[in-house]
Amino acid sequence: MPHEVKLPAVKLWGGDFYNEGVTGEILFDKLKEECGVFGVFGHPEASHLCYYGLHALQHRGQESGGICTTDGSQFHYHRGMGLVKEVFDNDKLASLKGSIAIAHVRYSTAGESKLANAQPLVFKYREGDLAVATNGNIVNAPEIRKDLERQGSIFQTSSDTEVVAHLIARSKHDDIVEAAREALVKLNGAYAFLFMTNGKLIAARDPHGLRPFVLGKLGDAYVFASETCAFDAVGAEYVRDIEPGELLILDGSGLKEDRFTEKTKRAVCAMEYIYFSRPDSDIDAVNVHSARKRMGRRLAIESFVDADIVTGVPDSSISAAIGYAEQTGIPYELGLIKNRYTGRTFIQPSQELREQGVKMKLSAVRGVVEGKRVVMIDDSIVRGTTSLRIVNLLREAGAKEVHVRISSPPFKNPCFYGIDTPSRKELIGAQKTIEEIRKAINADSLHFLSKEGLVESIGHLHGETQGGHCTACFDNMYPTQVPDEETAACGCD
Amino acid sequence: MPHEVKLPAVKLWGGDFYNEGVTGEILFDKLKEECGVFGVFGHPEASHLCYYGLHALQHRGQESGGICTTDGSQFHYHRGMGLVKEVFDNDKLASLKGSIAIAHVRYSTAGESKLANAQPLVFKYREGDLAVATNGNIVNAPEIRKDLERQGSIFQTSSDTEVVAHLIARSKHDDIVEAAREALVKLNGAYAFLFMTNGKLIAARDPHGLRPFVLGKLGDAYVFASETCAFDAVGAEYVRDIEPGELLILDGSGLKEDRFTEKTKRAVCAMEYIYFSRPDSDIDAVNVHSARKRMGRRLAIESFVDADIVTGVPDSSISAAIGYAEQTGIPYELGLIKNRYTGRTFIQPSQELREQGVKMKLSAVRGVVEGKRVVMIDDSIVRGTTSLRIVNLLREAGAKEVHVRISSPPFKNPCFYGIDTPSRKELIGAQKTIEEIRKAINADSLHFLSKEGLVESIGHLHGETQGGHCTACFDNMYPTQVPDEETAACGCD
Amino acid sequence: MPHEVKLPAVKLWGGDFYNEGVTGEILFDKLKEECGVFGVFGHPEASHLCYYGLHALQHRGQESGGICTTDGSQFHYHRGMGLVKEVFDNDKLASLKGSIAIAHVRYSTAGESKLANAQPLVFKYREGDLAVATNGNIVNAPEIRKDLERQGSIFQTSSDTEVVAHLIARSKHDDIVEAAREALVKLNGAYAFLFMTNGKLIAARDPHGLRPFVLGKLGDAYVFASETCAFDAVGAEYVRDIEPGELLILDGSGLKEDRFTEKTKRAVCAMEYIYFSRPDSDIDAVNVHSARKRMGRRLAIESFVDADIVTGVPDSSISAAIGYAEQTGIPYELGLIKNRYTGRTFIQPSQELREQGVKMKLSAVRGVVEGKRVVMIDDSIVRGTTSLRIVNLLREAGAKEVHVRISSPPFKNPCFYGIDTPSRKELIGAQKTIEEIRKAINADSLHFLSKEGLVESIGHLHGETQGGHCTACFDNMYPTQVPDEETAACGCD
Amino acid sequence: MPHEVKLPAVKLWGGDFYNEGVTGEILFDKLKEECGVFGVFGHPEASHLCYYGLHALQHRGQESGGICTTDGSQFHYHRGMGLVKEVFDNDKLASLKGSIAIAHVRYSTAGESKLANAQPLVFKYREGDLAVATNGNIVNAPEIRKDLERQGSIFQTSSDTEVVAHLIARSKHDDIVEAAREALVKLNGAYAFLFMTNGKLIAARDPHGLRPFVLGKLGDAYVFASETCAFDAVGAEYVRDIEPGELLILDGSGLKEDRFTEKTKRAVCAMEYIYFSRPDSDIDAVNVHSARKRMGRRLAIESFVDADIVTGVPDSSISAAIGYAEQTGIPYELGLIKNRYTGRTFIQPSQELREQGVKMKLSAVRGVVEGKRVVMIDDSIVRGTTSLRIVNLLREAGAKEVHVRISSPPFKNPCFYGIDTPSRKELIGAQKTIEEIRKAINADSLHFLSKEGLVESIGHLHGETQGGHCTACFDNMYPTQVPDEETAACGCD
Repeated sequence: MPHEVKLPAVKLWGGDFYNEGVTGEILFDKLKEECGVFGVFGHPEASHLCYYGLHALQHRGQESGGICTTDGSQFHYHRGMGLVKEVFDNDKLASLKGSIAIAHVRYSTAGESKLANAQPLVFKYREGDLAVATNGNIVNAPEIRKDLERQGSIFQTSSDTEVVAHLIARSKHDDIVEAAREALVKLNGAYAFLFMTNGKLIAARDPHGLRPFVLGKLGDAYVFASETCAFDAVGAEYVRDIEPGELLILDGSGLKEDRFTEKTKRAVCAMEYIYFSRPDSDIDAVNVHSARKRMGRRLAIESFVDADIVTGVPDSSISAAIGYAEQTGIPYELGLIKNRYTGRTFIQPSQELREQGVKMKLSAVRGVVEGKRVVMIDDSIVRGTTSLRIVNLLREAGAKEVHVRISSPPFKNPCFYGIDTPSRKELIGAQKTIEEIRKAINADSLHFLSKEGLVESIGHLHGETQGGHCTACFDNMYPTQVPDEETAACGCD
Repeated sequence: MPHEVKLPAVKLWGGDFYNEGVTGEILFDKLKEECGVFGVFGHPEASHLCYYGLHALQHRGQESGGICTTDGSQFHYHRGMGLVKEVFDNDKLASLKGSIAIAHVRYSTAGESKLANAQPLVFKYREGDLAVATNGNIVNAPEIRKDLERQGSIFQTSSDTEVVAHLIARSKHDDIVEAAREALVKLNGAYAFLFMTNGKLIAARDPHGLRPFVLGKLGDAYVFASETCAFDAVGAEYVRDIEPGELLILDGSGLKEDRFTEKTKRAVCAMEYIYFSRPDSDIDAVNVHSARKRMGRRLAIESFVDADIVTGVPDSSISAAIGYAEQTGIPYELGLIKNRYTGRTFIQPSQELREQGVKMKLSAVRGVVEGKRVVMIDDSIVRGTTSLRIVNLLREAGAKEVHVRISSPPFKNPCFYGIDTPSRKELIGAQKTIEEIRKAINADSLHFLSKEGLVESIGHLHGETQGGHCTACFDNMYPTQVPDEETAACGCD
Repeated sequence: MPHEVKLPAVKLWGGDFYNEGVTGEILFDKLKEECGVFGVFGHPEASHLCYYGLHALQHRGQESGGICTTDGSQFHYHRGMGLVKEVFDNDKLASLKGSIAIAHVRYSTAGESKLANAQPLVFKYREGDLAVATNGNIVNAPEIRKDLERQGSIFQTSSDTEVVAHLIARSKHDDIVEAAREALVKLNGAYAFLFMTNGKLIAARDPHGLRPFVLGKLGDAYVFASETCAFDAVGAEYVRDIEPGELLILDGSGLKEDRFTEKTKRAVCAMEYIYFSRPDSDIDAVNVHSARKRMGRRLAIESFVDADIVTGVPDSSISAAIGYAEQTGIPYELGLIKNRYTGRTFIQPSQELREQGVKMKLSAVRGVVEGKRVVMIDDSIVRGTTSLRIVNLLREAGAKEVHVRISSPPFKNPCFYGIDTPSRKELIGAQKTIEEIRKAINADSLHFLSKEGLVESIGHLHGETQGGHCTACFDNMYPTQVPDEETAACGCD
Repeated sequence: MPHEVKLPAVKLWGGDFYNEGVTGEILFDKLKEECGVFGVFGHPEASHLCYYGLHALQHRGQESGGICTTDGSQFHYHRGMGLVKEVFDNDKLASLKGSIAIAHVRYSTAGESKLANAQPLVFKYREGDLAVATNGNIVNAPEIRKDLERQGSIFQTSSDTEVVAHLIARSKHDDIVEAAREALVKLNGAYAFLFMTNGKLIAARDPHGLRPFVLGKLGDAYVFASETCAFDAVGAEYVRDIEPGELLILDGSGLKEDRFTEKTKRAVCAMEYIYFSRPDSDIDAVNVHSARKRMGRRLAIESFVDADIVTGVPDSSISAAIGYAEQTGIPYELGLIKNRYTGRTFIQPSQELREQGVKMKLSAVRGVVEGKRVVMIDDSIVRGTTSLRIVNLLREAGAKEVHVRISSPPFKNPCFYGIDTPSRKELIGAQKTIEEIRKAINADSLHFLSKEGLVESIGHLHGETQGGHCTACFDNMYPTQVPDEETAACGCD
């Protein structure tokens, strides 16, 4: 049963307003990316597959990357800060021997010391080597952690993964599968877990299936990934989504399908469809691009406006903009262009140059928008600052009118399941009416997709009657117990 | 008068077939990018403006970048291999003092020794310091060079720019403007030149206006750029295109508009509209995205095919694909996705992994194309190998039919004006009929845009009755004398 | 009471024979460097002092460096692979805020994953933040570790430091001083420990004082270091050596001098005097250069040989060589020269070039040694391979005779106290007679300093009647219990 | 006939007083290193030999390194900033194909744009490819350059080498040997030149033999180097010094020994023996270490002082210090220690930390000097600031007396032959009496080696009656015409 949360908002996101992300984009108010996991069992070039798989999942995290392999008797391991292509070179990949591997990309935060948090994390415990990689967030990790500390545990990272490793090490079970099962049932949260020992690969998805997680095959080898686009990248065949509460075990005797809980209720994160996942991925058998296009079409039906052109904010809103244009017959145009070469090391313009109009990443195309009534499609509004900036870009380029259409409902509630969101106090959707937001972002009109529209655009997943999505950030109906906002350290591990 | 060329084809492009470009893309047969220039006169942060301007022109060259400034008495100078963001950091930009600057990005070739060819080139001659940056190619540079060598000149680069510097140094005129004028009239070719001394900035565009070149203002400062998108990036206002044969001089007494020749005939490179320039740029007052969209619409009229979806090869063919979709009513879809994180340092997959299906950059979206009749829009076919690969990607992802539509005529003739093209022997358009090409690329059908369609889509420039474009690569009608192909060293300087 | 060990030799040192160290030197058979620690309490530029202090201790470890500071409420932390100057830049130092700091350099091993072992290690436990840095080796760490694992502890490093952190976290005492004391008494080994919390700095030296550890003052601030040379580098004043078994505590109330055990017996590592420490350091008030010079003089007395020149193997044997020359009156010459620019990234010559005589680091000076009878002084012989190589270098350069004199007794027994030594099987001193060694290294004569000569050259420390040195590697008399060699993982933490 | 110069002193050396060199040493007033050249003819691994040869010559220049090879038909080429080991990696060396090569290390200056001046310089002229590397300085280069500019030449570097290339290109002779000969006779200066075409290697030494230059053999291959230590490094055999005015030509027909002038007078730079060259090198058959030791012995005879210890300033004064100690019987001690790990990227201490006594590179050994009367041997005094600093270091470490002995006469006159010296105004030897200098450097006594002592210590070279050395920096007797100091751009090329 969903839990409604009524809490005073606190500042979770202490970052500099004019903060630069790894991508060089000025992060006015975009949501931070999550993480991505990839795993291989039984392929002689396991580390190379991880490299290409992680590369395909790079949009899920640009802060750090890591691969841990086992050759059956020992681990080989490398992690580093930066993009996958920066972390690994041929020598490093070659040194990661073995046919079993798990790998991870992590989302962007600042500070070098975060290398300690890069995954996979690798531990030694009484049964030998253990590597863990995960995407998601354990809601009750802080309590478990406090409990473990009371028992004398030490922590070297701020990662939930380390909490789970402690649970496994302190389990009464020697067998890793039983120990993992025992640990998992103690967790409340959203996750795709990969555990590796020198002989076993174990995958687990949270009881609500909040985070995406898929199983594939490449010849005789098995592969796991956060998104199907990673399977396409390595030439693997999609087999199926891992089920909520499922526990898959691979070892010398092949694949064993098991569960760690029967208490499940599908609640796949809607934001994966709206914003996070790559358009070429399928989540629970629904293609992301197609879902976005349906959102755009539905948005057109819900909030038609007569205009000269439709444009989308690149890259995540392109699909919805095309849908909107097709539905309305208003031509779709490249009214906004993103510079592909911006990146981490980019030099920020001085305040003066910024005021003179220096732009680094996004520009409005004067030749396209000048004198036009523009429908601008975006996927979400978090604080409203980016939207204001883009509307102004269009106006400066000569747009006569700017009608903003958002392919999701107002974002009102923080996420506790692996997405780094500001507190309610900073969420414009939680603080203002739609008309107030419209004024704040300087738009001629503003409409958000309805929750029903969103749910129907994604489609009812696996025959769930209520849709099977988590839409808590829109409707405050969390699929699990969530903490008081004050105590939540809402990060991605 | 155009000159028709009938020459035996030779191999100009010796590169590895499976060559990787700076962008990490496997260069089956894409044309190599040209260069970009940027200049500033009279702004206290000239070097920073160059940085952002070059960044906006990065698509025109990723091999190297350089900025040369003058503080009125001496030059400050930095060049390096790589992207603009890699070549410069804050300290380096800060050390480039002065309010006058010229800057350059160079296209991608292999080999470190190419640093010597990075621009701007800086010389000392009897009148003092001279810096030169150019985009284009001087057709008769080899002869002039031979001539200069006979007179005892030494060359440290393979760049045409050095040839021009020698001509200036050996001029009977001491005045840099007169010396530059004397040098320019000796040249046959395509170019946008920026010359800088400690007090003057000089800009010149070739007599046919083959390469784009624009003038802008930023407050009291003047700016120059290869494309208008660089003006948007720095907040500058577009003033006008520099005219063919024009010579603009900036010094303490302001802007002087002059000409170095009256013998001009506008022939703007059509490929700038089709492929090279950024969609948000205007060339000779025609927006590139809009021109591409018109090409797509015209292509739809010329070669309609009944299909389920239209998709474009990212990024350059997206606009034409949207045009095709709008004209036909067939939905436009993201059937092909490009990985944004691929780059220079990317590790190539082994032959084995490639055969197993590992992809790095482009993937077809199964969820979108499976079971569909696909119209695939691309901007050009050079050797045909990339087209074959993309068609196969679509088929492997389940496309039922793949109809290829190219938004330009068959590419049949080498370019001598700054685009690095293979010889006729390797140009599939020069060697095969359209039906043979269709078979070679495994398409269900294939159509190229007609030359008339192309010309009308771009639009007649500045009232020229013949359109004002150079379409020599399609029709062999070169606007200037061109050399025997054997002797042509067709590079970009 | 010393413990004599009689054990079958095993291969502890699996490295490549032609292994290259961080210094670019081909490590035929030199002992591996240990680690170095540095600490500051009460100086506003604590991180900078650590930087210069570590730099002075760089000879003790070139693999990695790290600094952890506290500003009183939180830790600031950076570690990295490489030399101190490579790991830190100005920005990183500036970000390490606070007036209390501990720092560490680690010795060289191969493999990136060793970053996890770089120190200081930083933990969170029930009482808050804890940082630990140590030089030395805990002999009974494997047993304690096994015990902890049985209780459910997980380990992320192979470092003894993590073992100690677990002991502290599991202590019945909440107070860090009491918890540290409880942990220390469980340890058997050689160590200089620095512990830091957000308010305290704690230093402890093992009960035998095996590893050097000194206390100094810089104005009102206290500093700690492995060697006094680090005090000279930061302008600090030497106060005294930390006593065996001593526990020093610094917090808001100043310095508190305490002990964790009374059961001590001074046994300072003789190899620190012979080889490891910098000649400008004093250990237990004895200057290292002077001690080495006395070893050389004594060696001359014990084993005079008539010769034309004396030369030392740079850098560690220079002092002894000067002593030998002064005692004998034979001129000291630079017969061997070390290239100062060799380093980690140096390209190894091919086998062919090596055979043709390509040398990278050490060369014999023909102009000095040609036709001469040479006395070559070295500090120790481990496997004998380096000695053979240097003797041959001298012979190839024309030396008529080469008489090898070693300023220490034959190295026969592995070290369990922080020096990475091969097993007895590989120690030429354990396997062969002196005459056999002489033949193996192709010397005309060979003598080792007697143990008595060594002890007297160093001098009796602090009035100990037996000298107060550990000479177990020469005489098999270990000051503590030592494990079966098979089970010893003899590394440095 | 030597030319005496009487000129007003000007500031040639504008650098920051607290300037840091590549070596991380604070350059109070050390002379800047020169350059080094290396060449190979006829060895299949020519580029690798260059790498090891340059490495051995690294002390002659740490700013940049470069290698140019020819495979007989084309050049392969790489240059970069930094140490040889930083400029080259295995891939780069492997790409430098061919059996003929010339290579260069350049001395340290600041500023990236200096890459343009890195050598070898490579040119194309009417006869094809030409590469040039040189050590030394052409005194009349500025006039020749002006002349060439008047004729329309352009210059891309500030290097004399480019001047020589212009002369060759403008020669009436097509043959490279004749053209080089014609160019060389126009030059006034000090140099070791290596010229390379696709078939020939040419070596030339200036008519006075001011700069060292040696010929060696490695199997059938010929090698050239600035110093013999590079031959030892690659296993080559020393054949002979190249004679003043000699021109050696290597091509398919073997070695041809020729001359470009008969007007020669041997005047080998004395400073090579005193300071620049490596102690294991022989110059004109005199070993450098041995010469330095004789200087030390002679210095002891000329200026004995009763003291407790002798110490040398590392590294260049060690040999002289040993000589002094042997002559006097006063023990030689390591009173000063240099930190081996300092380097380019080292962070300078803040003014405050410097005042607190933070040292980076050189430290005095308290245990050795405390309470002692110290004789401190150094090779030269330029401005006097370094000497003052070292004397103070010794006093702070407790030295009771510090007696400074310099193993060369007072440095009074600028060098025009490739050594970067300050103007007379800044040379303390030109401005002050010896007693004034003694006070300025805070020494208890000070003596310089006499010029006769210096000359006799080096030895009369090749039977020259006047010694055959250039000692102009001491006695103002320049072996060639030298310019007015105002116009001299005294750099190394």
